[in-house]
Amino acid sequence: MTQTAPSEKALVPFVSVDNMMRLIHRIGIEEMLRGLAEYIEADFKRWHLFDKTPRVASHSAEGVIELMPTSDGEVYGFKYVNGHPKNTADGLQTVTAFGLLADVASGYPVLLSEMTMLTAMRTAATSAVVARLLAPRASTVMAMIGNGAQSEFQTLAMKAICGLEEVRLFDIDAEATRKCAANLAGLGVTVTECSSAEEAILGAQIITTCTADKQYATILTDNMIGSGVHINAIGGDCPGKTELAPAILHRAEIFVEYPEQTRIEGEIQQLADDHPVTEIWQVLTGKAEGRRAEEQITLFDSVGFAIEDFSALRYVRDQLDRTGLYDALDMLADPDDPRDLFGMLQRSRPS
Amino acid sequence: MTQTAPSEKALVPFVSVDNMMRLIHRIGIEEMLRGLAEYIEADFKRWHLFDKTPRVASHSAEGVIELMPTSDGEVYGFKYVNGHPKNTADGLQTVTAFGLLADVASGYPVLLSEMTMLTAMRTAATSAVVARLLAPRASTVMAMIGNGAQSEFQTLAMKAICGLEEVRLFDIDAEATRKCAANLAGLGVTVTECSSAEEAILGAQIITTCTADKQYATILTDNMIGSGVHINAIGGDCPGKTELAPAILHRAEIFVEYPEQTRIEGEIQQLADDHPVTEIWQVLTGKAEGRRAEEQITLFDSVGFAIEDFSALRYVRDQLDRTGLYDALDMLADPDDPRDLFGMLQRSRPS
Repeated sequence: MTQTAPSEKALVPFVSVDNMMRLIHRIGIEEMLRGLAEYIEADFKRWHLFDKTPRVASHSAEGVIELMPTSDGEVYGFKYVNGHPKNTADGLQTVTAFGLLADVASGYPVLLSEMTMLTAMRTAATSAVVARLLAPRASTVMAMIGNGAQSEFQTLAMKAICGLEEVRLFDIDAEATRKCAANLAGLGVTVTECSSAEEAILGAQIITTCTADKQYATILTDNMIGSGVHINAIGGDCPGKTELAPAILHRAEIFVEYPEQTRIEGEIQQLADDHPVTEIWQVLTGKAEGRRAEEQITLFDSVGFAIEDFSALRYVRDQLDRTGLYDALDMLADPDDPRDLFGMLQRSRPS
Repeated sequence: MTQTAPSEKALVPFVSVDNMMRLIHRIGIEEMLRGLAEYIEADFKRWHLFDKTPRVASHSAEGVIELMPTSDGEVYGFKYVNGHPKNTADGLQTVTAFGLLADVASGYPVLLSEMTMLTAMRTAATSAVVARLLAPRASTVMAMIGNGAQSEFQTLAMKAICGLEEVRLFDIDAEATRKCAANLAGLGVTVTECSSAEEAILGAQIITTCTADKQYATILTDNMIGSGVHINAIGGDCPGKTELAPAILHRAEIFVEYPEQTRIEGEIQQLADDHPVTEIWQVLTGKAEGRRAEEQITLFDSVGFAIEDFSALRYVRDQLDRTGLYDALDMLADPDDPRDLFGMLQRSRPS
């Protein structure tokens, strides 16, 4: 080969699943959740700077593949994510993801990263940012309904960011609850396994619902929900998939990430198009009130928004130099003379 | 580390720039251009199967970053591509790209590939597929106006697919012409360097325009174009960027990839919204006529469409097993139990 090594401009830092897990351990999972929360909060506070667009979805009988782009004018980011409920039966993840950051000024990618693990982290961090803002004072107990892939991350984020002391687990699949309880053992949270959703929410100030593979399931009914709680609804996140009885929605003050997207995908798809909702960024910047009274029911109708992924990728990028936990990917053709792409190809010809 | 190697499901084949160049040399550039042309033609012939959408663009003062998704119902693909005319001044490519294919049934990515080199190849192959369909019989001479990164690829595709014998080069930058002529020396095409566009088009049956960084430039004026030619207009590919005088458009029969996109980005942005155009797939499937007479002027108003990238990625994927020219990228978190993402993370903890 007469070829020379690719120039530095041609190389894009890539964070593999392996390196993402090393990064989490290196930083510490709770510390990283706090770091992600800071980045997410900072980006929500500069909401108006972002180019916001509903995700671009390609639907099929089996699931959906989505692209979630956004930009703050200096950095562009997008996430590729799929949602395939039936994958579990084939031993595959229902959700996998990867993401990219690029420099707006040149269009050159600056980071490619796995985002299955990172999405779990950022979703939990977002839930905790919002719970810290909206949950009753001194919330120390959370009901965790749905004990799948997101449940441990949710619990640790609430511990690290909101001071959670006890989590009460319930899942219609007792095996999932056992898995979650085993994973959380020894991590500093009291874990209580419950045999019904009613039992799980006893004494809880925060109620997190995160179930999958249900069409208009009703995980929480109206009579189960007392006053003075914060509901963190994660699982209702696409058209036809909701978890809460409409009566709860009518009793709650509803908070959302980006109404244009949430009205299509969230719990509030069950409500009229003009049902009042408050945007999280407005509460974070003081433009709107959060919780107004201890007895109020607050509901975070979370569907996941592109800016959260952007924040998470920013956070990861900012750890690269310090940790070196990435590979350099030869992803961009970068000839010495930009007009001479063909010459670059010719010079690479095996002799 | 207690960690085990990632499972096969977690690994995505990645074709780096280096491996793409090896692939091109292994197959042979002209043979690969013919192969790409076959895949592009096959996909255009099953046009109705594709999920078609205009690209998703994020514009800034310096340029644009675009995502171009499509799907045939079995395979999903998208390309990331930027366009930054001023990059050249900083020693960067104006256009860089990468792309991905995924399995629609599971949402799992099956190929990640550099696409700067591959886009140059597929753009040239597309031009040649269309020229073979529309150019006058026995077209052996092409004028190549604009001698930048695309010019050699265009020439070789026209040689490999349409039987081109002579290319007549012109660029306002004589250095670009010299570069192109030097690169094409010894590759089986007669190369004639010209000092004006008028000189370049003398005796040419195919006229290719591919210039960059011009706002409503007029590369070809009406009086330069005689009858019985095929114009392959590559450079007019975004709002505000065109190369042909409107009078030429009015004299020509216009062929496009996807009218919804071309009316915004192509030469025909200069015409009324309802100006008649013919879609290439219609000619390829016999639903519409191509060239009807030797004296006609046919114009391919090419802007580049997602399906061409999809075809190119399909072609590359189909070479992987045979050539082994890829790396396996640890991009997808794939725990043994899909619900146990956290357990996978815990088991990776350094001991």
